[in-house]
Amino acid sequence: MFHGLSAFPLTPTTEQRIDTAAYTALVTRLAATGVDSIGALGSTGSYAYLTREQRAHAAQIAVEAAGGVPVIVGIGALRTSHVLQLAEDAQKAGASALLLAPMTYQPLTEDEVFGLYEDVTRELSVPLCVYDNPATTHVHFTDELHGRIAQLPNVASIKIPSVPDDPSASELRVDALRALIPDTVTIGISGDWMAARGLTAGCDVWYSVIGGTFPQTALALTRAAQAGHALKATELSEGLEPLWALFRQHGSLRVMSAAASHLGLTEATNLPRPLRALDETARRRVAAALDALQLTF
Amino acid sequence: MFHGLSAFPLTPTTEQRIDTAAYTALVTRLAATGVDSIGALGSTGSYAYLTREQRAHAAQIAVEAAGGVPVIVGIGALRTSHVLQLAEDAQKAGASALLLAPMTYQPLTEDEVFGLYEDVTRELSVPLCVYDNPATTHVHFTDELHGRIAQLPNVASIKIPSVPDDPSASELRVDALRALIPDTVTIGISGDWMAARGLTAGCDVWYSVIGGTFPQTALALTRAAQAGHALKATELSEGLEPLWALFRQHGSLRVMSAAASHLGLTEATNLPRPLRALDETARRRVAAALDALQLTF
Repeated sequence: MFHGLSAFPLTPTTEQRIDTAAYTALVTRLAATGVDSIGALGSTGSYAYLTREQRAHAAQIAVEAAGGVPVIVGIGALRTSHVLQLAEDAQKAGASALLLAPMTYQPLTEDEVFGLYEDVTRELSVPLCVYDNPATTHVHFTDELHGRIAQLPNVASIKIPSVPDDPSASELRVDALRALIPDTVTIGISGDWMAARGLTAGCDVWYSVIGGTFPQTALALTRAAQAGHALKATELSEGLEPLWALFRQHGSLRVMSAAASHLGLTEATNLPRPLRALDETARRRVAAALDALQLTF
Repeated sequence: MFHGLSAFPLTPTTEQRIDTAAYTALVTRLAATGVDSIGALGSTGSYAYLTREQRAHAAQIAVEAAGGVPVIVGIGALRTSHVLQLAEDAQKAGASALLLAPMTYQPLTEDEVFGLYEDVTRELSVPLCVYDNPATTHVHFTDELHGRIAQLPNVASIKIPSVPDDPSASELRVDALRALIPDTVTIGISGDWMAARGLTAGCDVWYSVIGGTFPQTALALTRAAQAGHALKATELSEGLEPLWALFRQHGSLRVMSAAASHLGLTEATNLPRPLRALDETARRRVAAALDALQLTF
């Protein structure tokens, strides 16, 4: 489950409710395409904007639609007691694993971040992936902190946000982290445009945004890297550069939102406000990139 | 209401519930001391960690305990539709005004931040204070963005996080912002250790953390500045430097939490996890600073 391709779908939503039909179709298709796991309610799945009830419902839908493919459910919240409720809900819904980012409002000390994982991991009955995403949480994990947290019960993977530009530096970075964590804990890369480099440098899994909407594209890259074909994986990634450039400019969530609506998978408005759909110009650029790359669902 | 001293009390909480007795006592005392307004459910009031139901209840308690002193209620949330619900709840509870920070998970574009205020202000029946707090929201307001938002209906004040170290630079900064906003919109300073400088530089109001627990101390400084006694206000602030140093080291919330428990106003644990009470050493330093300054509630 914490190897290969973990695909993170959108949770299409109106201001009033989750678009359950669109969500079911997205997850069903991911499972049919052969991804190794599905990451429901990740950042791409807008977990932070949904109520407890909506998240429980989305977790149920995802597990059912996944038809046996393991589902990893995001349980992040600002307050520890709410994280524990979300963990319980996700486990009841049949989640195979959980994903936890240390969301912040007040900046947290390192001991408070560790304390969050300590409080949560002791209550779990399924494995947990530690979600390191400074762009959204503003928590900057040191490798030492990762090492401390990875010793806690039920920790099974770490989702890191990036690897260095240079391939050798990437290998050193992954090796340095691996030296501090138990053998049972895998390392996953999540910045999509760094996925080929991360997998080639020794990451076990790609926690993938693009994989949530274009699983075949992400699978081709992942399987190439897993088979040791670093050059092919790199070429596949470089071929997607028009999309990565849009990710860097607008954020991957807004680009996938536009892509899903362009392909008719969701309504044009599928993000929770205050997030907004891209403007017409940017939407046309996304559509042109998808068409040029012949990316279809 | 958007002038003078606005005092922001803690919302003491256990992991299960708000300590309503302690909260009522804190607010009652603020009102009796003569503060100009009470900022319920600000960052110091841990609004971001409470449920909708808890926030509605806290707003009711605050309005009742304030006995006619205007209460400004924080309505920030990650999602616009939730902000609108909180605004409705706060208005029903009798809030005289609302306070809105653009909380973020996904980083917001400037147009998304403006859109949030546009969506919310058009629904209000009481005035709103725009809460600019990059340390918690990671939104960096430009003066131009403040200017755009300040034109929206119901906007009555802007709470800025800081002014420059130099008094002349502070005046220029306040003047520059004031030139971009309507005459009806006041400017408030919120970094406590910059309050004397901010008020002296022309800010209309001090949105005060220390004022939520030590209203007399904050009132003395505010009234000196309002009377044009800049030197006295500065001296009063400099006298509190041991406390400001602790604020800068640990965050003002953790220090006020320790202070309130030291004085017996709350239980020792009054913050929502993952936030933790200061450790024994730091708590002793807070207690020593309070004792040396003869700060009592």
